[in-house]
Amino acid sequence: MTSTIKDLIRTIPDFPKDGIMFRDITTLFGDAEGLRLASDEIVQNYNGHRFDKVAALEARGFVLGGIVAYQLGVGFVPIRKQGKLPGATITRDYELEYGSETLEIQDDAIEPGDRVLLLDDLIATGGTAVAGIELIEELGGVVDHASFVIDLPELDGSKILRKRGVSVHYLCQFEGI
Amino acid sequence: MTSTIKDLIRTIPDFPKDGIMFRDITTLFGDAEGLRLASDEIVQNYNGHRFDKVAALEARGFVLGGIVAYQLGVGFVPIRKQGKLPGATITRDYELEYGSETLEIQDDAIEPGDRVLLLDDLIATGGTAVAGIELIEELGGVVDHASFVIDLPELDGSKILRKRGVSVHYLCQFEGI
Repeated sequence: MTSTIKDLIRTIPDFPKDGIMFRDITTLFGDAEGLRLASDEIVQNYNGHRFDKVAALEARGFVLGGIVAYQLGVGFVPIRKQGKLPGATITRDYELEYGSETLEIQDDAIEPGDRVLLLDDLIATGGTAVAGIELIEELGGVVDHASFVIDLPELDGSKILRKRGVSVHYLCQFEGI
Repeated sequence: MTSTIKDLIRTIPDFPKDGIMFRDITTLFGDAEGLRLASDEIVQNYNGHRFDKVAALEARGFVLGGIVAYQLGVGFVPIRKQGKLPGATITRDYELEYGSETLEIQDDAIEPGDRVLLLDDLIATGGTAVAGIELIEELGGVVDHASFVIDLPELDGSKILRKRGVSVHYLCQFEGI
């Protein structure tokens, strides 16, 4: 973990609603050195691993998702909110802190047996990540590894993923929610 | 232009509504070689240019936006639909083929004088790109270059950008809308 990465993340109180301390990674991504450090640390963490795809969660996850897929030399798979992806898809509902949502993936985005690295900006309760993993697994993919810019350990999301056998990597942690 | 890139883009009729031939770049991004070719061609096109930031339009633009920002060694700036970005923002309304929308950028994402490369997956009528450019310009940034995976020349978007003095680069063109 690099303290620089955490220092570049800005906290904005009461977004998207009162009582939420929003961890804003745009300040990290907007900094050339921060973007490089964050990307390189994820890629280096998986040195020696072999993946077939990087899947990332809409929309903040797409930024590092693209970079990491490129650096690992694999394809990029978007997992999006319902209604955004064309063609045949499968969906999964999940609960999150601010309500409920439906995630969607194209049904030919993953080949059976594909080893998929899941990426997102933040893991909180893990609801979004678990829904993403279930979509990939439903298509026959295998998710043994997931990486996040930020872990909120008090919300137990990374613990829930580890219980499913997923190895969790993050660049920094924030206390509170 | 690489014919491989165009070949990897799938056309899905009648999405998101009847009569629209949707050019689906997920098949390009999902292919390791396609993702690499598309990214490298954009980066190589700007060999010798100096940018301070890459700005990309939500959400498909974020994938190549992240890669190109990383490769050029500059920061990444997201331009999003209204309500997604925390902190102080400015907004711009625009018309697009399927209705009207509002784009938003954080008001400290661009420094006055920043040379910004604008990236998106597709240029059609140019409404989204022009709104993005106006947001960057309102913050004092300079947009002399914009790059897209796909140009739809019949919709005149790239012509409109060129009339504003923006140099337009694209990886492939599709006829029709």
